[in-house]
Amino acid sequence: MSGITVWAPNAQKVTLLADGERHQMSATEDGWWATEATGRDYGFLIDDDETPLPDPRSRRQPESVHGLSRHFDPSGFDWTDSAWTGRQLPGRVIYELHLGTFTPDGTLDSAIDRLDHLVSLGVDFVELLPVNAFNGIHNWGYDGVLWYAVQESYGGPEAYQRFVDACHARGLAVIQDVVYNHLGPSGNYLPRFGPYLHEESSNTWGATVNLDSPEVRRYVIDNALMWLRDYHVDGLRLDAVHALVDESPKHILRELAEETDALSAFLGRPLTLIAESDLNDPTLVTPREADGYGLAAQWSDDFHHALHVALTGETTGYYADFEPLGALEKVLTRGFFHDGTYSSFREKDHGGPIDTGTMPTWRLVVANQNHDQVGNRAAGDRLAASLDYGQLAIAAVMTLAGPFTPMLFMGEEWGASTPWQFFTSHPETELGKTTAEGRFAEFERMGWDRSTVPDPQEPSTFTDSKLDWSETASDDHARLLEIYRALAQLRKERPSLTDPRFDRVLVTIDEDEKWLILGRGELSILVNFSEESRLVPHLTGGVLLLVSTAGVDLSDSGVTMPGHSVAILSR
Amino acid sequence: MSGITVWAPNAQKVTLLADGERHQMSATEDGWWATEATGRDYGFLIDDDETPLPDPRSRRQPESVHGLSRHFDPSGFDWTDSAWTGRQLPGRVIYELHLGTFTPDGTLDSAIDRLDHLVSLGVDFVELLPVNAFNGIHNWGYDGVLWYAVQESYGGPEAYQRFVDACHARGLAVIQDVVYNHLGPSGNYLPRFGPYLHEESSNTWGATVNLDSPEVRRYVIDNALMWLRDYHVDGLRLDAVHALVDESPKHILRELAEETDALSAFLGRPLTLIAESDLNDPTLVTPREADGYGLAAQWSDDFHHALHVALTGETTGYYADFEPLGALEKVLTRGFFHDGTYSSFREKDHGGPIDTGTMPTWRLVVANQNHDQVGNRAAGDRLAASLDYGQLAIAAVMTLAGPFTPMLFMGEEWGASTPWQFFTSHPETELGKTTAEGRFAEFERMGWDRSTVPDPQEPSTFTDSKLDWSETASDDHARLLEIYRALAQLRKERPSLTDPRFDRVLVTIDEDEKWLILGRGELSILVNFSEESRLVPHLTGGVLLLVSTAGVDLSDSGVTMPGHSVAILSR
Repeated sequence: MSGITVWAPNAQKVTLLADGERHQMSATEDGWWATEATGRDYGFLIDDDETPLPDPRSRRQPESVHGLSRHFDPSGFDWTDSAWTGRQLPGRVIYELHLGTFTPDGTLDSAIDRLDHLVSLGVDFVELLPVNAFNGIHNWGYDGVLWYAVQESYGGPEAYQRFVDACHARGLAVIQDVVYNHLGPSGNYLPRFGPYLHEESSNTWGATVNLDSPEVRRYVIDNALMWLRDYHVDGLRLDAVHALVDESPKHILRELAEETDALSAFLGRPLTLIAESDLNDPTLVTPREADGYGLAAQWSDDFHHALHVALTGETTGYYADFEPLGALEKVLTRGFFHDGTYSSFREKDHGGPIDTGTMPTWRLVVANQNHDQVGNRAAGDRLAASLDYGQLAIAAVMTLAGPFTPMLFMGEEWGASTPWQFFTSHPETELGKTTAEGRFAEFERMGWDRSTVPDPQEPSTFTDSKLDWSETASDDHARLLEIYRALAQLRKERPSLTDPRFDRVLVTIDEDEKWLILGRGELSILVNFSEESRLVPHLTGGVLLLVSTAGVDLSDSGVTMPGHSVAILSR
Repeated sequence: MSGITVWAPNAQKVTLLADGERHQMSATEDGWWATEATGRDYGFLIDDDETPLPDPRSRRQPESVHGLSRHFDPSGFDWTDSAWTGRQLPGRVIYELHLGTFTPDGTLDSAIDRLDHLVSLGVDFVELLPVNAFNGIHNWGYDGVLWYAVQESYGGPEAYQRFVDACHARGLAVIQDVVYNHLGPSGNYLPRFGPYLHEESSNTWGATVNLDSPEVRRYVIDNALMWLRDYHVDGLRLDAVHALVDESPKHILRELAEETDALSAFLGRPLTLIAESDLNDPTLVTPREADGYGLAAQWSDDFHHALHVALTGETTGYYADFEPLGALEKVLTRGFFHDGTYSSFREKDHGGPIDTGTMPTWRLVVANQNHDQVGNRAAGDRLAASLDYGQLAIAAVMTLAGPFTPMLFMGEEWGASTPWQFFTSHPETELGKTTAEGRFAEFERMGWDRSTVPDPQEPSTFTDSKLDWSETASDDHARLLEIYRALAQLRKERPSLTDPRFDRVLVTIDEDEKWLILGRGELSILVNFSEESRLVPHLTGGVLLLVSTAGVDLSDSGVTMPGHSVAILSR
C-alpha cells in the first residue's frame, strides 16, 4: 500500500487516523485527498468532526460498519484455481444461498463443507446473497453499506477468497449478489464524503444513488470489477436494477456491461451479469449490437408467479393476473407474461415483448422460490409448508426441465421444513423497533394478524431460518432430493432440455382440467396440477424417463396422471 | 453399433460389404438405407457396381480414402478433461499449425510433445489445419474428402482424441479447421450416393456443395457438431465461407451457429465458430438479435495485407490498394480496409462497414502470416526470408499488441527459416501431374519462372516445409522468440492490450516518414517502418515496457526510433 486516498469533495479538510496517528491529507484533484501515510486500522476525520469514519472503499470492518477500516491486500491470497477458465451461463443451474442460514455456523468456511452437496446436485453456479458489510451480525444483506468490504461475521475478505477458490476446485462458479440501488439504514457515512446519494429522491429502500456523478459511477463500476478481479468471482447478480435512476446518455448498466466485457477479455474467462429487474424489458439482455445493454440474463418473476399460482391457487396482490393456467403457457412460450399487457397490480401496461426468434431462453433466470418470494411472505414459509410432495415435484420439474436458466433456493431440493424469514440484527434499539414495526404494519395492511409475523430483530427469527441438514437423511425429504438429482442428470443426457430456442418450446394446456404438456424436442413434460387423476392426451408410444409418483400409466388413449403428478416422457 | 445406415437416394440397390460378408440393405425413408448387420471394415456397393465405396460418414480410413471404412466408436476414449469448462475467444491468442510439418514425425502424438512450447509462448487456442481424410499421405488438408474421418497418417481418430485431451490438460483449447465449400480432386465418392454437389456450378476448388438439400445440410452440420461433441473440440474455423452458396431463407452459417449454440448450452462450455471469409461482411459476426448470423469471429485479411505492405513494400495484385500507411491506420481503427470502398484487385466495391460503436475488436482474427499467405507464395517463403529482425519484431508487436485476436502461424515466433510450401501426395500419376502443372501455370501467369516454383508432388517440397525445432536454440531465433513471449506476458499484465473497444484505439501516422503510433489506453505502441532513424513525437515521460532494439531513446522532443524498430511505452 503506497499511501491512502479518498474522494471527499464535500470536505474542507480530511485527516487520516491510522493506527492512532493523525495525518493531514492533501487535496489532489476532482475532490480526491491523498497522503503517503498508511496503516492497518484507519479512518477519516472530515473537517472538524473527531469521529473517524470508515473508508468508503474499505475492504474490511473488523468491529462493525461504524468502526475503523482495516487494510486488506487482496493480492496476498494463494489461489489454486489457475486452471479455471470460467463457466458460461447457457444451460447451467444456479443455486441461491444465504451464508448466514446455509449452515449452522453461518460462515464462508462452513459453507465450503457443503459444496460437495451442490456438486452432487448438479449445480454449476453458487449465487451468494450480498456479503458486503452490514449493520449487526446477521442480515439478508440488503441493508449493506460498505460495498467493498466482506462482512466480518461471514469471515471477512480472505475467507471469501478461500470460498471462491474452493468452489472453483469443485467446478462451481460463483455469482455475487450486489446492491447498487440504495444503502442500508445504518452505517451509511457516504453523504459525509460526497454526493453519493440523491437526498431528494428515494425508492422503497432509501435515497437513490446519484448516478449523475462520474465519481459515483466509478464507485459502482469499480466495485463490480473488484469482485470479478480480486475475488475471482464469475458473475454478478445486480439487485433491483429498476431502482437505478440514470438519465445519462449511456445507462450505467450498459457502461458496466462494457467494462465487464473488457475485463472478461483480459482475464480470459466468461463474466456473467444478471439483473434482477421488475421492468420486463428485453433491452437489458439484448446485445449492444441490437441497441440493448448487453447483460447476460435477467430474473423473470413472471415465471415464478405463474407457477406459484398454478400450484397454490393463491391469487392475491400481484398474483391476480396469473390465475389462468394460460399465464404459465404464455410464460413458457414467450418468456414474459406481462409483455405490454395490463397489470392489474400496477394498474398500468407493463413490460415489452421478447423477440423469441433470436433471444435464447437461458437469458431468463427462473425459480419456483427464492429469497424474496419466500422471505417476503409474512411467515417466511416455503412452498414445502403448504404443498404436497407431488406438487413440489412439479415445481422442480417445471424449473429444471423448463426452457429457462433454473435457480434453486437453498433447501428447496429436499423440501426443507425450515422457514426463511425476514431477519435483522440492528444494534440500535430504535432502528430495531422501527424495522420490526415497519414489517408488522406492512402485513397488517395486507390483512394479516401482526402476531403471526415473526419479529425480525428476535434472534430466533434468524436461527429458525437456518437449514436443518439432518432432514436430508429422512425418507420424505430424500425422495424429493432424488427428483432434483434425476433432473440434473437428465439435463446432462438430453440436449433438448438445455436447447435455448424459444421456437422449440411447445405447450398445450387444458384450462379446466388443469393439466399441461410442455414439449421439448423428443421430450414431453406432462403435468397434472389438479388433485384429481387426469387422462392427458398424448401420442402413443414413448418411454417414461421420470415420474413423480407410481400410477402414471401409458395407454392408447393417453397418459393417466394421478392428482398432483408430473412425468417426463421420451418419444 | 446397432446396424449401419447410409443416405443414398440415387441408388436402386445398396449392399453392405462388411468384413467380407454381403448384406442387402433396405430402403427406409428419404433416401436412407439400413441393415442390422455390422462389421469392422466395411463399404457400400451401389446398384451393380462391385467396387465397395467408403461410408460418407466414415470415421476412419486405414488404407486410403479409396479403401474400406473402419468402424470407430468415439465414446470409447477415456477422457481426462472433465474439469475443462472451455475457453472463450475474447482476449485470447491462437496458434495455427499444420500437423504434417509441425514436427518431424508429423503426427498428432508427436505434436503433443510440443504443446508445452505453446503454453510457454502464451498461446490459448491451437488451430489445426484440416485433419479429415485426404488423398495420399501428406497434404495441406484442403484436398480432403471424407469429412468425418481423421486422416490415418496423422494417427486417426483416437490419436485425435488423445491430442485434444492433452491440450485441455495444459489449458489449451482446440480449434479445428473444417472445409465445407468443396471436396478434394480424388476420393470423392459422394455423387455416387446422392446429390451432395451442384455439378453445374463450381468455385476455385471444385463443384459447390448442394445446400438446397436438407440431407446435405445435415451432413455439414452433423459434421461440425461431431468435432465439438465427440472430440471435445472448442471451436471450428470454417474455410472460405464465401464459397458456400446458400439461397435458403436461413443461411447455413446462421443455422450452424444456432445449432452450435444449442450444443454449447448442453455441453456447458463455449463453442467458438470462426469464419474465413473474403466478404468483409460484418453480418457474419453480428449477433442474431441484430440480424447477423451470430458467428464468434472472422478472419481479416485486410490486416494482413496492410501490415504486409507496410513491412515489405510489395504492392502487386491484391496488395495494391494497401500501399499507403493510411491503409493500416484504417484497419486498426475500423477493422476492414475495404468496407464498401473500391477494390482495384476485384475491380468493384467491396465489403461493408463495421459498427465500431458496438462490435468488439476480438471478432476479427488477424495474422502477419498464415498458411495461405505463406503457402500461396511461389516459393512458400515466410516473412523471415525477406525481413530483418526489427521488421519481424514490428510484425509481432502489431499482431499481439494490436486490437484484434492474434493468430500466429507455427514457427513465426522464432522466425523459422524453413519455408512452408504447397505440397500434395496424390498417388495417381496423372492427378499429380495436373496438380503440379496447375501450380506452375498459375505462377507463370503472374510472371514467375516456373523453375523457381517447387513441385508440389516432390517429397522434398513437403519435408523442406517441416519446422526445424533446433533453430529455437540459436541466438538469432531466440531473440525474436523472447519478443513473442514478452508480448504474451504483457497481454496478461495490461488490460489495455485486450480491451475490445474500437473507440479506445487511437492511431497517428506519418505517411512520409513511415512511422505509426497505436494508442491503447495508457500504452503507446511506436513503430518505425522506415529503415531510417525517426524522431516520433510523443508526450514526454513514460516508461518503456518493450523495445525491439537498443537505441530507442526518450527525450523531451519525442522518441528517437532507429530504422525498423518498435517500442511499447506506458504513460
